[in-house]
Amino acid sequence: MTINVLFAAPAKDWDEYAPLLRAAFSDHGIDAALSLETPPEETDYIVYAPNSSLQDFTPFTRCKGVLNLWAGVEQIVQNPTLTQPLARMVDDGLTQGMVEWVCGHTLRHHLGMDTHLFGQDGIWREDTAPPLASDRTVCVLGLGALGSACANALRQFGFRMRGWSRTPKLLEGVTCFYGTSGLLDALTGADIIILLLPNTPETENTLNAETLARPARGAVVINPGRGPLIDDDALLAALESGQIGHATLDVFRTEPLPSDHPYWAHPNVTVTPHIASATRAKTAVNVIAENIRRGEAGEPLLHLVNRDSGY
Amino acid sequence: MTINVLFAAPAKDWDEYAPLLRAAFSDHGIDAALSLETPPEETDYIVYAPNSSLQDFTPFTRCKGVLNLWAGVEQIVQNPTLTQPLARMVDDGLTQGMVEWVCGHTLRHHLGMDTHLFGQDGIWREDTAPPLASDRTVCVLGLGALGSACANALRQFGFRMRGWSRTPKLLEGVTCFYGTSGLLDALTGADIIILLLPNTPETENTLNAETLARPARGAVVINPGRGPLIDDDALLAALESGQIGHATLDVFRTEPLPSDHPYWAHPNVTVTPHIASATRAKTAVNVIAENIRRGEAGEPLLHLVNRDSGY
Repeated sequence: MTINVLFAAPAKDWDEYAPLLRAAFSDHGIDAALSLETPPEETDYIVYAPNSSLQDFTPFTRCKGVLNLWAGVEQIVQNPTLTQPLARMVDDGLTQGMVEWVCGHTLRHHLGMDTHLFGQDGIWREDTAPPLASDRTVCVLGLGALGSACANALRQFGFRMRGWSRTPKLLEGVTCFYGTSGLLDALTGADIIILLLPNTPETENTLNAETLARPARGAVVINPGRGPLIDDDALLAALESGQIGHATLDVFRTEPLPSDHPYWAHPNVTVTPHIASATRAKTAVNVIAENIRRGEAGEPLLHLVNRDSGY
Repeated sequence: MTINVLFAAPAKDWDEYAPLLRAAFSDHGIDAALSLETPPEETDYIVYAPNSSLQDFTPFTRCKGVLNLWAGVEQIVQNPTLTQPLARMVDDGLTQGMVEWVCGHTLRHHLGMDTHLFGQDGIWREDTAPPLASDRTVCVLGLGALGSACANALRQFGFRMRGWSRTPKLLEGVTCFYGTSGLLDALTGADIIILLLPNTPETENTLNAETLARPARGAVVINPGRGPLIDDDALLAALESGQIGHATLDVFRTEPLPSDHPYWAHPNVTVTPHIASATRAKTAVNVIAENIRRGEAGEPLLHLVNRDSGY
């Protein structure tokens, strides 16, 4: 019997995803009809983007899974009409892109690249050799698929790696901390801090006046995670005092970041427009197809969201 | 019997190197007297920097080795008075620093970082996701200690790696080319080209009008090797035509690069002041001490320079 799959994402994504999804269904031996207009009561699975107009899941009475196209589920996880199983996207392409972006900006700050990029003025500034990676402490907050992939990649350069997560985790070559008290220890003396936590009520303002006082003076904050992880006023104050030397921020409480936001004009802040990484259709469609195969075979879905923890 | 070691490098290096060298000699069980003023006829080994005032090696009649502090030996290899064995510096710290610099600038160009760094103007530029590393071809010219370490590190990101060297080499996960005809094949269609060749008469102008025509249109050139590897006029012409999209250059025929050199003002050229990597005294002293131990034990010196090939 044909499986009915509703594509509930902005129409602009349809042209890219539809042919790739159909090919992935076929590769996984799934006989599925993909449509933008499957009637709710006939829908078996929903391929879902949180910015879709679909917000009331009540009429989807036979739906066996809502398969998120994005890594973040904060916009949907509290939706009271969503009683169906919800799966996050853990996409190899998104993870790889994040590793590239995080390593690129970590090395940029480690090497002091900006001094040279903004100093093309004919003056030959002979520096002494900067510290090697093995002389720098990098702390990754969040050790899920993205955080642990980034920590592993940075470790290859020899950075002294620390990681922090809500619950205990083990990661080779990374000194791991957990829980509320572990957060302060993880941050103490760190030179570069990378935020890859999910956005939940518990993670809001993870970087605040108290925690921002812990890193080494002049430390760098890199946030490719989610805007609410940072108390913006506390970060601006820490930048003002020099406690934080630079912040490279890809995500914000309001996106697009308003053009009059102080981050744009701050000389020690780099704003990037939520480009650190994106789901790549080519790889993501395989995760969707595999989850439909699992749903039909009665196997548990991959990357199922825990509604209590919110991710 | 005490071994007499002359330190022939600019006086400013003495304070940093002398205590570390003495500690390394002691660690290696070597009874050596290190001095800035050992008489030539009593000198057993010379720790040498090519910018030292010592250029006539004739009086050093019992010297068993000239141990270079730098990776490059082009300023000394042709010196007719140098009849003693000459060893290059292959320093783990220098190699590691080079890997960090090369990966940092490769990721910078791969991610299109400059667009954002120079676009902090309040305009949120939503791009489509850039290609992943696996969609880019990186070609490393030179597969010695530095080139092969950089190729290995870049391979971890999934870049499609190519390498080229004068003589055949094998490197896991890197498509290797060699010889004059192999150079054109190695460059054809490459997106990012990294120069880590030694400076010899054979490698001069490796990038010239003919070879610069081979990479993909808009390719990036990164030169942390040596200035003469590039025909500067040909590179400027390729930048003008758009065949080369950007050049990040750390080394030049004349250093410091004169303030009126067209590279400084070119919008698609980044000049860095020969900082890609430097010998790190902490690790380099162990290479020097090990070579003195070898010399005394009658074993061949590490990293002995072949006077015919010039490296």
